[in-house]
Amino acid sequence: MTVQYIESPQNPKIRSLARLKKKNERWQKRSFLVEGEQLVRDLLESELCIETLVLLSTRQRDFSALESLSGYKKIEHVWEVSEQAYALVSDTESSQGILAVAVWPEEKTRPQYPEHVLLLDGLQDPGNVGTLIRSAEAFGVQEVCCGIGTVDFLSPKVVRAAMGGLFRLSVVGEALSVYIEEWKRCYPGGHVIAAQADAERMCHDVSLTAPTLLVIGSEAHGISASLLHLIDETLSIPMQKTVESLNAAMAGSVLLYEMYRQRLTQIL
Amino acid sequence: MTVQYIESPQNPKIRSLARLKKKNERWQKRSFLVEGEQLVRDLLESELCIETLVLLSTRQRDFSALESLSGYKKIEHVWEVSEQAYALVSDTESSQGILAVAVWPEEKTRPQYPEHVLLLDGLQDPGNVGTLIRSAEAFGVQEVCCGIGTVDFLSPKVVRAAMGGLFRLSVVGEALSVYIEEWKRCYPGGHVIAAQADAERMCHDVSLTAPTLLVIGSEAHGISASLLHLIDETLSIPMQKTVESLNAAMAGSVLLYEMYRQRLTQIL
Repeated sequence: MTVQYIESPQNPKIRSLARLKKKNERWQKRSFLVEGEQLVRDLLESELCIETLVLLSTRQRDFSALESLSGYKKIEHVWEVSEQAYALVSDTESSQGILAVAVWPEEKTRPQYPEHVLLLDGLQDPGNVGTLIRSAEAFGVQEVCCGIGTVDFLSPKVVRAAMGGLFRLSVVGEALSVYIEEWKRCYPGGHVIAAQADAERMCHDVSLTAPTLLVIGSEAHGISASLLHLIDETLSIPMQKTVESLNAAMAGSVLLYEMYRQRLTQIL
Repeated sequence: MTVQYIESPQNPKIRSLARLKKKNERWQKRSFLVEGEQLVRDLLESELCIETLVLLSTRQRDFSALESLSGYKKIEHVWEVSEQAYALVSDTESSQGILAVAVWPEEKTRPQYPEHVLLLDGLQDPGNVGTLIRSAEAFGVQEVCCGIGTVDFLSPKVVRAAMGGLFRLSVVGEALSVYIEEWKRCYPGGHVIAAQADAERMCHDVSLTAPTLLVIGSEAHGISASLLHLIDETLSIPMQKTVESLNAAMAGSVLLYEMYRQRLTQIL
């Protein structure tokens, strides 16, 4: 593996990477940007491949720490680039001077029977989507499915907020109604639930230990009308009456925690 | 109340408002910016006063909806301003063309005995601070105290993420050690807890129904060393081992929910 130096932001390779900020380009090439040292480490330890590692030339070069990681062999190219070239590709204001172009596999390992699933229906805020992927992993969800209207889960802000969860967890993009119907065939006794601020039953009053598929609706419009008939039960999170709702990432995380807590308590 | 039209972004009044984006200026004048229709409504319904209401001149003028709100009479000035002038003051990319300058009172109504309190120790992300204020209100916390190192709770991003919680809830800025010691004198049987990823005891295994003060540490460094001796117990949130930690706002919200859930369940 050799290191190539790139000075000019006009370099076609740099311009090609910068285009990965666009959704269409990402999916056409099935590749996306991962920025920051910890995230690149998480990537190296995952099953994903790194096509190119981009290092800011003014950064102290220290491959030794990276080489010790098992995945180092998966990197195809390493570029050392000027500040101007780096700035064109980077998405963060205070960069650590390291980013990777990762490949999103055609066939990512998926759990055969995802008992606990999170569905994101039209979420627009990439911070919310990333945070929910992080919480989903923490609370033992096996798969996250992002509906068509949800912001692209390979966008840099989602990748950052997911803190590596995107590399370890099975995350898919699919039509939600199809996904729910298939899941229900797999788990006839499964429970499709959704959060709704004014639902009568509260999440901690309902048993959530069966296989559960949780749908989180969009920040502005809630759950799509076309999905409503597929939902077995809407649940509210107990809260003070002065508050209209929780942030979508907060509501989702609290419900995922409640599901996880109930499963743990049942085991004990 | 008369409406004044301001065209030039150079107008000293506009420049003076734009300076409210800076923390020092906000606290010197004890005033801050509140942007967006729903937030201005929340403000009007709160005990806070509005010094100036700023409307983008191209916006459809519709005072009638606002006039019905009880706080409307408290507004001192209304300005209609040009797009250029508005852009100088606004903090959002997609603005609704309405913002208010609110006064943060010297003596905001504080609960005499805040049984349940959230302390923010050095949080740097304004989105996290705002979200936690929103969750604190939702889950029945009576006061939020922001330590010296925490991002200013009157900054526009905090105000936005708090979704009105900042106007309704008691939020104070104080030295946290002083706050904790005073709170402990008030509640000798009270419980000072903090989240810690590797703490042995898990939050759902501990009774959290007594008066509780929850400390959330900074995103990067956790709880300050100077506070550790004041904490009665550190608790972990149950989660999968692949995940190092939750986002600070997530962890805080889950713990606030768990406290609230336990109190509700006890009452039943």
